[in-house]
Amino acid sequence: MIILGIDPGLRTTGFGVIHKQGAKLRYIASGTIKSGEGSLPARLKVILDGVAEVARIYQPECAAIEQVFVNVNPQSTLLLGQARGAAICALVSAELSVAEYSPTQVKQAVVGTGRAVKAQVQDMVARLLSLPGLPGSDAADALGIAICHAHSRETLMLIAGAGVNTGTGGGPLAGMRMKRGRLVG
Amino acid sequence: MIILGIDPGLRTTGFGVIHKQGAKLRYIASGTIKSGEGSLPARLKVILDGVAEVARIYQPECAAIEQVFVNVNPQSTLLLGQARGAAICALVSAELSVAEYSPTQVKQAVVGTGRAVKAQVQDMVARLLSLPGLPGSDAADALGIAICHAHSRETLMLIAGAGVNTGTGGGPLAGMRMKRGRLVG
Repeated sequence: MIILGIDPGLRTTGFGVIHKQGAKLRYIASGTIKSGEGSLPARLKVILDGVAEVARIYQPECAAIEQVFVNVNPQSTLLLGQARGAAICALVSAELSVAEYSPTQVKQAVVGTGRAVKAQVQDMVARLLSLPGLPGSDAADALGIAICHAHSRETLMLIAGAGVNTGTGGGPLAGMRMKRGRLVG
Repeated sequence: MIILGIDPGLRTTGFGVIHKQGAKLRYIASGTIKSGEGSLPARLKVILDGVAEVARIYQPECAAIEQVFVNVNPQSTLLLGQARGAAICALVSAELSVAEYSPTQVKQAVVGTGRAVKAQVQDMVARLLSLPGLPGSDAADALGIAICHAHSRETLMLIAGAGVNTGTGGGPLAGMRMKRGRLVG
């Protein structure tokens, strides 16, 4: 199964594509979409078209996007909301299911603690996907979201029928914890 | 020229389509898109597809959308931002230029004062477009945005070459004031 993770932002939208086969995760691609300096509608179009292009190229079977939180600056919150809306529009237009995870859930899934800093996420993403170097911060976040979704789906399948909703990303990430112990410990 | 006005909202997105020929405005259509009770991605898809459908049916030559302001509740601001992002995505995907106007600019253009209440906007929209009855509140706002854009473009043409940017909707709405005097006074 190919999973697309999206880290939304008005200036920079990160994307990460991974392949999950059984318990094994494999890196496919990652990068960023820069919206440039145009008007807001023009920038949203760059995000919409960029995410659509990524979906067209890598043909993911599902997608996950980071939940964003209200900024100290309400105007920034509004802009970020519109950027996230554009990214989600591209995903649903590609007929992908879209799961949502909080930054804390992603850090918990990737690093093992919801209080991890960005450098730890980058480091663990590189280890989990056997990357030769550290991915950029936005791409690492997007890959982390895809990893979080991969493990959440795994959990869902393990406890199939227990009424867990993938969309909320809840539930213990048992597989993830084993992986973390092996790689970090 | 056919102009599409959009009043964005997560629950209800209003749309209004008018035809402008010289100084004359004619009503074509208006209505609302209800996003239902699904997940956020599903609701954004309803807005995206709904606005795209309106653009496909009425073939506007340009579009205008209301600027939204930060809510007292930051979470609501974030949701509204995503809904507005979805509506803008539909417009830019239809290759429409998208102008933005503040609620104050729309009220100024339609009623003649930026402090008008909703009922006044509904009433003036009905008068300006010779409607047989009052449009609903969301549709009236969307028609008001289209009217605001119609007059702003008119102003732009009148003062062509003076460096006015339609996208910001600024400048005196001379034509509008005459119309208001004739209809209300």
